[in-house]
Amino acid sequence: MKKVAVLMGSDSDWPVVRSACAQLDAFGIPYEAHIMSAHRSPALVAEFSGYARKNGFGVIICAAGLAAHLAGAVAANTTLPVIGIPMKGGAMDGLDALLATVQMPSGIPVATVALNGAKNAAILAAQILAVEDENLAAWLDAARRDMAVQLEEKDAALQTEV
Amino acid sequence: MKKVAVLMGSDSDWPVVRSACAQLDAFGIPYEAHIMSAHRSPALVAEFSGYARKNGFGVIICAAGLAAHLAGAVAANTTLPVIGIPMKGGAMDGLDALLATVQMPSGIPVATVALNGAKNAAILAAQILAVEDENLAAWLDAARRDMAVQLEEKDAALQTEV
Amino acid sequence: MKKVAVLMGSDSDWPVVRSACAQLDAFGIPYEAHIMSAHRSPALVAEFSGYARKNGFGVIICAAGLAAHLAGAVAANTTLPVIGIPMKGGAMDGLDALLATVQMPSGIPVATVALNGAKNAAILAAQILAVEDENLAAWLDAARRDMAVQLEEKDAALQTEV
Amino acid sequence: MKKVAVLMGSDSDWPVVRSACAQLDAFGIPYEAHIMSAHRSPALVAEFSGYARKNGFGVIICAAGLAAHLAGAVAANTTLPVIGIPMKGGAMDGLDALLATVQMPSGIPVATVALNGAKNAAILAAQILAVEDENLAAWLDAARRDMAVQLEEKDAALQTEV
Amino acid sequence: MKKVAVLMGSDSDWPVVRSACAQLDAFGIPYEAHIMSAHRSPALVAEFSGYARKNGFGVIICAAGLAAHLAGAVAANTTLPVIGIPMKGGAMDGLDALLATVQMPSGIPVATVALNGAKNAAILAAQILAVEDENLAAWLDAARRDMAVQLEEKDAALQTEV
Amino acid sequence: MKKVAVLMGSDSDWPVVRSACAQLDAFGIPYEAHIMSAHRSPALVAEFSGYARKNGFGVIICAAGLAAHLAGAVAANTTLPVIGIPMKGGAMDGLDALLATVQMPSGIPVATVALNGAKNAAILAAQILAVEDENLAAWLDAARRDMAVQLEEKDAALQTEV
Amino acid sequence: MKKVAVLMGSDSDWPVVRSACAQLDAFGIPYEAHIMSAHRSPALVAEFSGYARKNGFGVIICAAGLAAHLAGAVAANTTLPVIGIPMKGGAMDGLDALLATVQMPSGIPVATVALNGAKNAAILAAQILAVEDENLAAWLDAARRDMAVQLEEKDAALQTEV
Amino acid sequence: MKKVAVLMGSDSDWPVVRSACAQLDAFGIPYEAHIMSAHRSPALVAEFSGYARKNGFGVIICAAGLAAHLAGAVAANTTLPVIGIPMKGGAMDGLDALLATVQMPSGIPVATVALNGAKNAAILAAQILAVEDENLAAWLDAARRDMAVQLEEKDAALQTEV
Repeated sequence: MKKVAVLMGSDSDWPVVRSACAQLDAFGIPYEAHIMSAHRSPALVAEFSGYARKNGFGVIICAAGLAAHLAGAVAANTTLPVIGIPMKGGAMDGLDALLATVQMPSGIPVATVALNGAKNAAILAAQILAVEDENLAAWLDAARRDMAVQLEEKDAALQTEV
Repeated sequence: MKKVAVLMGSDSDWPVVRSACAQLDAFGIPYEAHIMSAHRSPALVAEFSGYARKNGFGVIICAAGLAAHLAGAVAANTTLPVIGIPMKGGAMDGLDALLATVQMPSGIPVATVALNGAKNAAILAAQILAVEDENLAAWLDAARRDMAVQLEEKDAALQTEV
Repeated sequence: MKKVAVLMGSDSDWPVVRSACAQLDAFGIPYEAHIMSAHRSPALVAEFSGYARKNGFGVIICAAGLAAHLAGAVAANTTLPVIGIPMKGGAMDGLDALLATVQMPSGIPVATVALNGAKNAAILAAQILAVEDENLAAWLDAARRDMAVQLEEKDAALQTEV
Repeated sequence: MKKVAVLMGSDSDWPVVRSACAQLDAFGIPYEAHIMSAHRSPALVAEFSGYARKNGFGVIICAAGLAAHLAGAVAANTTLPVIGIPMKGGAMDGLDALLATVQMPSGIPVATVALNGAKNAAILAAQILAVEDENLAAWLDAARRDMAVQLEEKDAALQTEV
Repeated sequence: MKKVAVLMGSDSDWPVVRSACAQLDAFGIPYEAHIMSAHRSPALVAEFSGYARKNGFGVIICAAGLAAHLAGAVAANTTLPVIGIPMKGGAMDGLDALLATVQMPSGIPVATVALNGAKNAAILAAQILAVEDENLAAWLDAARRDMAVQLEEKDAALQTEV
Repeated sequence: MKKVAVLMGSDSDWPVVRSACAQLDAFGIPYEAHIMSAHRSPALVAEFSGYARKNGFGVIICAAGLAAHLAGAVAANTTLPVIGIPMKGGAMDGLDALLATVQMPSGIPVATVALNGAKNAAILAAQILAVEDENLAAWLDAARRDMAVQLEEKDAALQTEV
Repeated sequence: MKKVAVLMGSDSDWPVVRSACAQLDAFGIPYEAHIMSAHRSPALVAEFSGYARKNGFGVIICAAGLAAHLAGAVAANTTLPVIGIPMKGGAMDGLDALLATVQMPSGIPVATVALNGAKNAAILAAQILAVEDENLAAWLDAARRDMAVQLEEKDAALQTEV
Repeated sequence: MKKVAVLMGSDSDWPVVRSACAQLDAFGIPYEAHIMSAHRSPALVAEFSGYARKNGFGVIICAAGLAAHLAGAVAANTTLPVIGIPMKGGAMDGLDALLATVQMPSGIPVATVALNGAKNAAILAAQILAVEDENLAAWLDAARRDMAVQLEEKDAALQTEV
């Protein structure tokens, strides 16, 4: 199976980003996690992205806040699907990061998820890898059914409270 | 090759959405385009999405404006990757559509692109299908190099103007 | 009397939504409260909404946050009046939920109240049921006069402080 | 059948608001339309609202822009359901009107629809009157099914274009 | 000297509004403070405003949050200058209150100050009363000079820290 | 009677600001209109403001757009009441101007009116001057009654159209 | 004198950016203008920026819209002062570009000017070069005085109109 | 070497602004820090700015919040490069300060950094002084390389955690 790269612009993103890694672990998807910055280590970002497909990666997840350029900088250097997680917090509480991640120019898309949506980024990566992987697709369907069951259990619990 | 579904909530979205279809044509990716609405034909949306993987689709692109629920409603009924195009225009000029598309709850991601980003949605769909398709990947890389060359030509043209 | 349905997309909404139930209790209006999600249990939402009028409901209150689709998904499956409570909190602090709830397309209205406006949602439901119920209308009028009296008492108390 | 009141803060709102009246005409619902302003004729607003239930009204629709107080001023003087239409245009392009209409304090709800959502306001009024009127409910259901059929026809037409 | 009325829509506004009263006390300007609500006691608001000039008031300060209609409702019933204090807090953190206060229609101005700007509202009221009161004007000028001196002292203190 | 100063930061503001002057003319209030800029002629602004009370002005109206500093710069140099008109247009369509005008620090209020609210600024200036001028107050009351009458006439006209 | 680099992400920025070049021409400051994109020609951007100081540049001006990464990408590869011009237009009308340009992480500043502020970017570049160039400083001071004089002439012209 | 002036509108800004001073200390750049306010001590601001170049300053950093006029008021009185730090906090949480700082009119630029970006303001000041100072430029380059090394160390540390 292709690997997933999980990149973050700062070690302060890790408490949120780790739930992406946990989700990938739960799906049994191999991944690497790295700290690299579009602004502070741009050469490393360009090199990692440029060789990502050759190095066995299938999807790249990028988490960044503020003027969140990491996903865009990665997408500029690869044609692999790039998933952007805008990080909440900081001055504009994430609206800056959301707009800086999603409003990419024509030709260079970034698949943006919700603010701090690390878990959903991992699920989206799994969905992408599952397009040609029936086992993973079956697993995703099972997880989805579990979610509905859990909601029904919560609803049942609520009935004792109302 | 897996097909791409291109769904839009209203026929008024077609002038923007058609550039997604044009891009898929350019890549030689098979697709179907349909008008269906999370609010006006919800049963159809649920049925189409629920059978999409079985019916040979690999990615679903959804364009909608205002309280843009189409991508979310589709994502709720499939584990295929769903790409959301928030449509500009209307009362909040697209900010409402962007937030309604991207801010999905945990478990149900939507891969959101820029407002009116129909072309990028198609490129992202191609990138997803190219994860396991080397020919398509090579094509995407070539298209990317063309973009850089075009920019250099524009820069050369600018030098005659400055 | 017709029943009110009080739906919420997540059990985490209950601490806010319970004040809607408390208000309905105070008015003696029968209701059911359920957790169901436009994204995590879409089939249940469609079924519940589709049969709601037949099952004796007169109004449906829906509380949801983020890309708040619940009210819209319910409204898509019934012609009963649907009241949407956008939930504060989360990444955009509720603006995303407000816009995703109120900006509905033509043909499918959602009666939106203020962020976290659970109590007002219940009062609005009572007002709707009171259109053809003089006793309930009289009760609402009395409650309104009480509010004015309470304000006057608070103003009197303030005079001792100034 | 109870009447609907359609109030607007300015004659400049009429080009949008008339589609509410057209929709009420289509449903055969009796209504009165009036121009009155929370700021320029406050006494008239208070009087009209205070006697609205007695005068045979069942729902009051209020359209206003900018610091849109009309719906709130009406709701302060009646316990009938009040539907607010925030008007697009003006300085903040309607965001000011939306927030001024929907963010009502506890005790005084306004059922807010989308910016310029005059048609939806009329449909919501009809839904409210239909809670105890089976004929009107049947009509609303039929209109809803028509919408789905129209979408399917548009989708069929699209297939000839793709 | 004309009196100042200090109105607030809720007793929860008092902790902020009291600094307006404290400032009026400091200037020796007579005032009355009252809790009354555009939505919960509209008749009282209309009556108080309508008789305010006759009752010896020169300026009316109104503090309200959310869909902050109090200042507008007062201004609709008097031609005295009305100062609006939009209250921070609540769902939109005050942006809703600011827009609902300042975006008044043509003919009915509200003199809006900053969010929670109770002290500035009192100073503005004093400035208005000082237009025809040389003693008060002199006092305001002295207070202004004191502010500059205080800043210079703080700057001197900073020099010991740098 | 004290004079009103009508200042604008740019001659491009004049098409909007002239309606303030027209309104002052209608009330028979003497005024001067000047172009001066907080950024391009700061010394002139400081001098004009510093001597404004001495030179017979009672109120100063300031119109400016973008980072609208004019009202604040004037208020920093006088204790006369300063009315700020944030100008619509430009990059943020006036939200920048509104916030830059109204969010003044403690001690230096600016009485802010709606975006482009030139006419209301003039009415507010008249209301301020009318605090101690019964004739002007009577005139303002008459103008207010005219507004209600005009609305009633428009409502009567609407009845022929519905 | 050091040269100024004027970079833009797209040839569509040229109609705005050319006024930066015109201003530099007016000051007699040597410059080069180029089209290069953080996303479409990232390697070129990195190379140009990395050698900019060595190649005789003193300041780099970057204009870009949407998720405006150009200024940040340049700043990541040089320690020369980088001036960012967020471009108005596109989906969020420039707010996305403004936030993506200004909200840079610690260590990598971008000197951001107003939306479409090409002329001001050139003036800022000149101010930077003038820190150690007395002639240029004198020229800037003279231009500033001219601005005040022009305003006074416009004010004089206005007096004939009032 | 030219000095840097570090101005702040209030002593409450010092906890953020001190990191600008710390950074200037680290670079060995001489500076003065002062509290002065565009609104509370406007004459002092005008005088300090007017003489700043003559008094040996090369760059002026200004920190202010709310309707943040300090940077603009300084820029109006000098042609030295002025760097604006919009301060987070207060009613709009800094968006008001950001817009009031960056949206300067044509002719008077302010080099705006991120909200609370005091450290980046100091780095930008150093970059400006380094245009003609090779030693300082070398120091800045070394600091930049250190940042990349630190990130690599953090990435290495992360590998032990994943």
